Amino acid sequence: MSRLDSFIRRLEAQRACLGRAAELVRGVDGVVLELGLGNGRTYDHLREVFPDREIYVCERQVAAHPDCIPPADRLLLGDMFDTLPAARFLTGRVALAHFDAGTGDAAANLDLAAGLRPLIVPLLCPGGILATQQAMDGADLIPMPLPEGVAEGRYHLYRRA
Amino acid sequence: MSRLDSFIRRLEAQRACLGRAAELVRGVDGVVLELGLGNGRTYDHLREVFPDREIYVCERQVAAHPDCIPPADRLLLGDMFDTLPAARFLTGRVALAHFDAGTGDAAANLDLAAGLRPLIVPLLCPGGILATQQAMDGADLIPMPLPEGVAEGRYHLYRRA
Repeated sequence: MSRLDSFIRRLEAQRACLGRAAELVRGVDGVVLELGLGNGRTYDHLREVFPDREIYVCERQVAAHPDCIPPADRLLLGDMFDTLPAARFLTGRVALAHFDAGTGDAAANLDLAAGLRPLIVPLLCPGGILATQQAMDGADLIPMPLPEGVAEGRYHLYRRA
Repeated sequence: MSRLDSFIRRLEAQRACLGRAAELVRGVDGVVLELGLGNGRTYDHLREVFPDREIYVCERQVAAHPDCIPPADRLLLGDMFDTLPAARFLTGRVALAHFDAGTGDAAANLDLAAGLRPLIVPLLCPGGILATQQAMDGADLIPMPLPEGVAEGRYHLYRRA
Protein backbone atom coordinates (compact mmCIF):
# COMPACT_ATOMS: atom_id res chain seq x y z
CA MET A 1 0.00 0.00 0.00
CA SER A 2 1.43 3.39 -0.97
CA ARG A 3 1.59 6.31 1.41
CA LEU A 4 -1.22 7.91 -0.60
CA ASP A 5 -3.42 4.82 -0.08
CA SER A 6 -2.56 4.71 3.58
CA PHE A 7 -3.25 8.43 4.05
CA ILE A 8 -6.65 8.18 2.35
CA ARG A 9 -7.57 5.21 4.57
CA ARG A 10 -6.54 7.14 7.66
CA LEU A 11 -8.65 10.17 6.72
CA GLU A 12 -11.63 7.97 5.84
CA ALA A 13 -11.24 6.17 9.18
CA GLN A 14 -11.12 9.51 10.97
CA ARG A 15 -14.27 10.74 9.26
CA ALA A 16 -16.14 7.49 9.91
CA CYS A 17 -15.10 7.47 13.57
CA LEU A 18 -16.17 11.08 14.10
CA GLY A 19 -19.53 10.18 12.55
CA ARG A 20 -19.87 7.21 14.88
CA ALA A 21 -18.76 9.35 17.83
CA ALA A 22 -21.54 11.82 17.01
CA GLU A 23 -24.07 8.99 17.31
CA LEU A 24 -22.50 7.77 20.55
CA VAL A 25 -22.74 11.16 22.28
CA ARG A 26 -26.24 11.97 21.04
CA GLY A 27 -27.62 11.68 24.58
CA VAL A 28 -24.54 13.08 26.31
CA ASP A 29 -24.55 16.75 27.24
CA GLY A 30 -21.19 18.49 26.84
CA VAL A 31 -18.71 20.28 24.64
CA VAL A 32 -16.31 19.03 21.97
CA LEU A 33 -12.54 19.21 22.42
CA GLU A 34 -10.18 19.03 19.44
CA LEU A 35 -6.64 18.27 20.63
CA GLY A 36 -4.58 19.98 17.95
CA LEU A 37 -5.84 22.30 15.22
CA GLY A 38 -3.21 21.77 12.51
CA ASN A 39 -4.54 23.05 9.20
CA GLY A 40 -8.08 23.12 10.62
CA ARG A 41 -9.54 20.42 8.36
CA THR A 42 -10.81 18.23 11.17
CA TYR A 43 -12.01 21.22 13.18
CA ASP A 44 -14.03 22.29 10.14
CA HIS A 45 -15.52 18.81 9.99
CA LEU A 46 -16.35 18.86 13.70
CA ARG A 47 -18.16 22.18 13.22
CA GLU A 48 -20.28 20.50 10.55
CA VAL A 49 -20.97 17.37 12.59
CA PHE A 50 -21.63 19.27 15.85
CA PRO A 51 -23.29 22.53 14.81
CA ASP A 52 -24.95 22.94 18.21
CA ARG A 53 -22.03 22.23 20.54
CA GLU A 54 -19.24 24.49 21.72
CA ILE A 55 -15.95 23.28 20.24
CA TYR A 56 -12.73 24.01 22.13
CA VAL A 57 -9.41 23.59 20.37
CA CYS A 58 -5.89 23.10 21.72
CA GLU A 59 -3.03 24.38 19.59
CA ARG A 60 0.53 25.38 20.27
CA GLN A 61 0.65 27.96 17.48
CA VAL A 62 -2.21 28.61 15.08
CA ALA A 63 -1.29 27.99 11.44
CA ALA A 64 -4.68 26.91 10.09
CA HIS A 65 -6.60 28.12 7.06
CA PRO A 66 -8.14 31.51 7.99
CA ASP A 67 -11.67 30.03 7.66
CA CYS A 68 -10.82 27.36 10.22
CA ILE A 69 -9.59 29.35 13.19
CA PRO A 70 -11.71 29.00 16.33
CA PRO A 71 -12.91 32.09 18.21
CA ALA A 72 -10.29 33.28 20.71
CA ASP A 73 -12.40 32.25 23.70
CA ARG A 74 -12.55 28.64 22.44
CA LEU A 75 -8.82 28.35 21.81
CA LEU A 76 -6.45 26.82 24.38
CA LEU A 77 -3.24 28.28 23.07
CA GLY A 78 0.05 26.71 24.12
CA ASP A 79 1.56 23.32 24.93
CA MET A 80 -1.21 20.83 25.80
CA PHE A 81 0.82 19.65 28.78
CA ASP A 82 0.32 23.15 30.18
CA THR A 83 -3.09 24.12 28.82
CA LEU A 84 -5.02 20.91 29.59
CA PRO A 85 -4.22 20.83 33.34
CA ALA A 86 -5.03 24.57 33.49
CA ALA A 87 -8.41 24.16 31.73
CA ARG A 88 -10.31 23.38 34.94
CA PHE A 89 -13.53 24.78 33.46
CA LEU A 90 -13.55 21.77 31.11
CA THR A 91 -13.25 19.12 33.84
CA GLY A 92 -16.03 16.56 33.33
CA ARG A 93 -17.66 18.72 30.64
CA VAL A 94 -16.29 17.18 27.41
CA ALA A 95 -18.74 14.93 25.55
CA LEU A 96 -16.24 14.22 22.76
CA ALA A 97 -12.49 14.64 22.68
CA HIS A 98 -10.62 13.99 19.45
CA PHE A 99 -6.91 13.37 19.20
CA ASP A 100 -4.73 12.70 16.17
CA ALA A 101 -1.05 13.31 16.77
CA GLY A 102 -0.75 13.57 13.03
CA THR A 103 3.02 13.29 12.67
CA GLY A 104 4.70 10.59 10.64
CA ASP A 105 6.62 9.31 13.66
CA ALA A 106 4.59 6.41 15.06
CA ALA A 107 6.68 5.95 18.21
CA ALA A 108 6.59 9.65 19.09
CA ASN A 109 2.82 9.71 18.42
CA LEU A 110 2.27 6.85 20.89
CA ASP A 111 4.46 8.53 23.52
CA LEU A 112 2.49 11.73 23.14
CA ALA A 113 -0.82 9.84 23.42
CA ALA A 114 0.37 8.07 26.57
CA GLY A 115 1.49 11.37 28.08
CA LEU A 116 -1.75 13.16 27.28
CA ARG A 117 -4.08 10.34 28.34
CA PRO A 118 -4.15 11.23 32.07
CA LEU A 119 -4.77 14.87 31.15
CA ILE A 120 -7.65 14.09 28.79
CA VAL A 121 -9.61 11.48 30.76
CA PRO A 122 -10.64 13.80 33.65
CA LEU A 123 -12.08 16.28 31.14
CA LEU A 124 -14.50 13.71 29.73
CA CYS A 125 -17.95 13.66 31.23
CA PRO A 126 -19.33 10.25 32.27
CA GLY A 127 -20.29 8.50 29.05
CA GLY A 128 -18.11 10.91 27.06
CA ILE A 129 -16.23 9.60 24.02
CA LEU A 130 -12.57 9.81 23.12
CA ALA A 131 -11.82 9.34 19.40
CA THR A 132 -8.12 8.95 18.78
CA GLN A 133 -5.79 7.74 16.10
CA GLN A 134 -3.37 6.51 18.75
CA ALA A 135 -4.40 3.79 21.19
CA MET A 136 -5.10 5.05 24.74
CA ASP A 137 -6.10 1.83 26.47
CA GLY A 138 -6.70 1.73 30.22
CA ALA A 139 -9.19 0.85 32.94
CA ASP A 140 -11.21 4.06 32.80
CA LEU A 141 -11.71 3.99 28.99
CA ILE A 142 -13.92 1.29 27.51
CA PRO A 143 -13.10 0.46 23.87
CA MET A 144 -16.11 0.85 21.56
CA PRO A 145 -16.67 -1.00 18.27
CA LEU A 146 -15.36 0.81 15.20
CA PRO A 147 -17.61 1.72 12.27
CA GLU A 148 -17.81 -0.75 9.40
CA GLY A 149 -14.88 -0.48 7.02
CA VAL A 150 -12.42 0.82 9.62
CA ALA A 151 -9.73 -1.78 10.27
CA GLU A 152 -9.01 -2.70 13.88
CA GLY A 153 -6.24 -0.46 15.25
CA ARG A 154 -6.47 2.18 12.54
CA TYR A 155 -8.50 4.42 14.83
CA HIS A 156 -9.85 4.06 18.36
CA LEU A 157 -13.11 4.95 20.09
CA TYR A 158 -13.40 4.83 23.87
CA ARG A 159 -16.21 5.64 26.24
CA ARG A 160 -15.31 6.99 29.65
CA ALA A 161 -16.41 4.50 32.29
CA MET B 1 -19.07 19.77 2.59
CA SER B 2 -16.32 20.16 5.21
CA ARG B 3 -12.67 20.69 4.33
CA LEU B 4 -12.04 17.13 5.48
CA ASP B 5 -14.67 15.80 3.04
CA SER B 6 -13.30 17.95 0.26
CA PHE B 7 -9.71 16.88 0.95
CA ILE B 8 -10.63 13.18 0.93
CA ARG B 9 -12.46 13.64 -2.38
CA ARG B 10 -9.46 15.39 -3.87
CA LEU B 11 -7.07 12.62 -2.81
CA GLU B 12 -9.45 9.93 -4.08
CA ALA B 13 -9.76 11.80 -7.38
CA GLN B 14 -5.97 12.02 -7.63
CA ARG B 15 -5.55 8.30 -7.01
CA ALA B 16 -8.28 7.37 -9.47
CA CYS B 17 -6.82 9.67 -12.15
CA LEU B 18 -3.31 8.28 -11.71
CA GLY B 19 -4.77 4.79 -12.08
CA ARG B 20 -6.56 5.82 -15.26
CA ALA B 21 -3.41 7.56 -16.52
CA ALA B 22 -1.49 4.31 -16.04
CA GLU B 23 -3.97 2.55 -18.34
CA LEU B 24 -3.80 5.38 -20.88
CA VAL B 25 0.00 5.24 -21.19
CA ARG B 26 0.25 1.44 -21.26
CA GLY B 27 1.36 1.53 -24.89
CA VAL B 28 3.36 4.75 -24.61
CA ASP B 29 7.10 4.47 -24.05
CA GLY B 30 8.55 7.12 -21.73
CA VAL B 31 9.32 8.30 -18.22
CA VAL B 32 7.11 9.72 -15.49
CA LEU B 33 7.49 13.30 -14.27
CA GLU B 34 6.14 14.40 -10.89
CA LEU B 35 5.93 18.20 -10.73
CA GLY B 36 6.44 18.82 -7.04
CA LEU B 37 7.47 16.28 -4.41
CA GLY B 38 5.92 17.77 -1.27
CA ASN B 39 5.76 15.14 1.46
CA GLY B 40 6.38 12.42 -1.14
CA ARG B 41 2.99 10.69 -0.81
CA THR B 42 2.09 10.92 -4.48
CA TYR B 43 5.64 10.08 -5.55
CA ASP B 44 5.39 6.94 -3.43
CA HIS B 45 2.13 6.09 -5.16
CA LEU B 46 3.66 6.68 -8.59
CA ARG B 47 6.50 4.28 -7.70
CA GLU B 48 3.89 1.66 -6.94
CA VAL B 49 1.82 2.29 -10.07
CA PHE B 50 4.87 2.57 -12.38
CA PRO B 51 7.43 0.12 -10.98
CA ASP B 52 9.15 -0.23 -14.36
CA ARG B 53 9.44 3.42 -15.38
CA GLU B 54 12.00 6.03 -14.46
CA ILE B 55 10.33 8.70 -12.32
CA TYR B 56 11.76 12.22 -12.35
CA VAL B 57 10.69 14.69 -9.69
CA CYS B 58 10.79 18.49 -9.59
CA GLU B 59 11.13 20.10 -6.19
CA ARG B 60 12.34 23.44 -4.95
CA GLN B 61 13.58 22.12 -1.61
CA VAL B 62 13.22 18.51 -0.51
CA ALA B 63 11.19 18.13 2.69
CA ALA B 64 9.63 14.70 2.05
CA HIS B 65 9.53 11.65 4.28
CA PRO B 66 13.00 10.00 4.12
CA ASP B 67 11.49 6.89 2.44
CA CYS B 68 10.07 9.06 -0.35
CA ILE B 69 13.10 10.93 -1.63
CA PRO B 70 14.02 10.21 -5.25
CA PRO B 71 17.59 9.28 -6.19
CA ALA B 72 19.69 12.40 -6.78
CA ASP B 73 19.95 11.73 -10.53
CA ARG B 74 16.14 11.74 -10.85
CA LEU B 75 15.65 14.97 -8.93
CA LEU B 76 15.27 18.33 -10.69
CA LEU B 77 16.11 20.55 -7.76
CA GLY B 78 15.10 24.21 -7.90
CA ASP B 79 12.33 26.45 -9.20
CA MET B 80 10.37 24.64 -11.95
CA PHE B 81 10.51 27.81 -14.07
CA ASP B 82 14.28 27.27 -14.17
CA THR B 83 14.60 23.48 -14.04
CA LEU B 84 11.95 22.53 -16.64
CA PRO B 85 13.39 24.64 -19.49
CA ALA B 86 16.86 23.35 -18.57
CA ALA B 87 15.76 19.68 -18.61
CA ARG B 88 16.33 19.23 -22.35
CA PHE B 89 17.00 15.51 -21.90
CA LEU B 90 13.30 15.13 -21.03
CA THR B 91 11.96 16.85 -24.16
CA GLY B 92 9.43 14.54 -25.80
CA ARG B 93 10.31 11.71 -23.41
CA VAL B 94 7.61 12.04 -20.72
CA ALA B 95 4.77 9.48 -20.94
CA LEU B 96 3.02 10.87 -17.86
CA ALA B 97 3.41 14.21 -16.15
CA HIS B 98 1.53 14.83 -12.90
CA PHE B 99 0.88 18.25 -11.43
CA ASP B 100 -0.93 19.24 -8.26
CA ALA B 101 -0.13 22.73 -7.05
CA GLY B 102 -1.38 21.61 -3.70
CA THR B 103 -1.75 24.95 -1.98
CA GLY B 104 -5.04 26.20 -0.59
CA ASP B 105 -4.98 29.29 -2.82
CA ALA B 106 -7.10 28.41 -5.87
CA ALA B 107 -6.24 31.56 -7.86
CA ALA B 108 -2.49 31.18 -7.26
CA ASN B 109 -2.73 27.50 -8.21
CA LEU B 110 -4.37 28.36 -11.53
CA ASP B 111 -1.77 31.04 -12.25
CA LEU B 112 1.00 28.57 -11.56
CA ALA B 113 -0.64 25.96 -13.80
CA ALA B 114 -1.00 28.50 -16.62
CA GLY B 115 2.64 29.53 -16.24
CA LEU B 116 3.95 25.97 -16.21
CA ARG B 117 1.79 24.68 -19.06
CA PRO B 118 4.08 25.86 -21.92
CA LEU B 119 7.06 24.34 -20.07
CA ILE B 120 5.37 20.97 -19.52
CA VAL B 121 3.76 20.32 -22.91
CA PRO B 122 7.04 20.06 -24.91
CA LEU B 123 8.31 17.41 -22.49
CA LEU B 124 5.37 15.09 -23.20
CA CYS B 125 5.91 12.49 -25.88
CA PRO B 126 3.19 12.18 -28.55
CA GLY B 127 0.30 10.41 -26.85
CA GLY B 128 1.70 11.27 -23.44
CA ILE B 129 -0.69 12.09 -20.60
CA LEU B 130 -0.84 15.09 -18.30
CA ALA B 131 -2.75 14.50 -15.05
CA THR B 132 -3.34 17.72 -13.18
CA GLN B 133 -5.51 19.07 -10.43
CA GLN B 134 -5.56 22.46 -12.13
CA ALA B 135 -7.09 22.86 -15.59
CA MET B 136 -4.52 23.31 -18.39
CA ASP B 137 -6.77 23.56 -21.43
CA GLY B 138 -5.34 24.40 -24.84
CA ALA B 139 -5.10 23.26 -28.45
CA ASP B 140 -2.23 20.81 -27.97
CA LEU B 141 -3.82 19.00 -25.02
CA ILE B 142 -6.91 16.86 -25.64
CA PRO B 143 -9.12 16.42 -22.56
CA MET B 144 -9.71 12.76 -21.70
CA PRO B 145 -12.72 11.34 -19.81
CA LEU B 146 -12.27 11.10 -16.05
CA PRO B 147 -12.64 7.83 -14.16
CA GLU B 148 -16.05 7.00 -12.73
CA GLY B 149 -16.75 8.78 -9.48
CA VAL B 150 -14.50 11.76 -10.19
CA ALA B 151 -16.60 14.90 -10.60
CA GLU B 152 -15.98 17.05 -13.67
CA GLY B 153 -13.37 19.69 -12.90
CA ARG B 154 -12.03 18.06 -9.74
CA TYR B 155 -9.07 16.67 -11.67
CA HIS B 156 -7.99 16.79 -15.31
CA LEU B 157 -6.51 14.28 -17.74
CA TYR B 158 -5.11 15.43 -21.09
CA ARG B 159 -3.43 13.59 -23.91
CA ARG B 160 -0.81 15.44 -25.93
CA ALA B 161 -2.05 15.81 -29.48
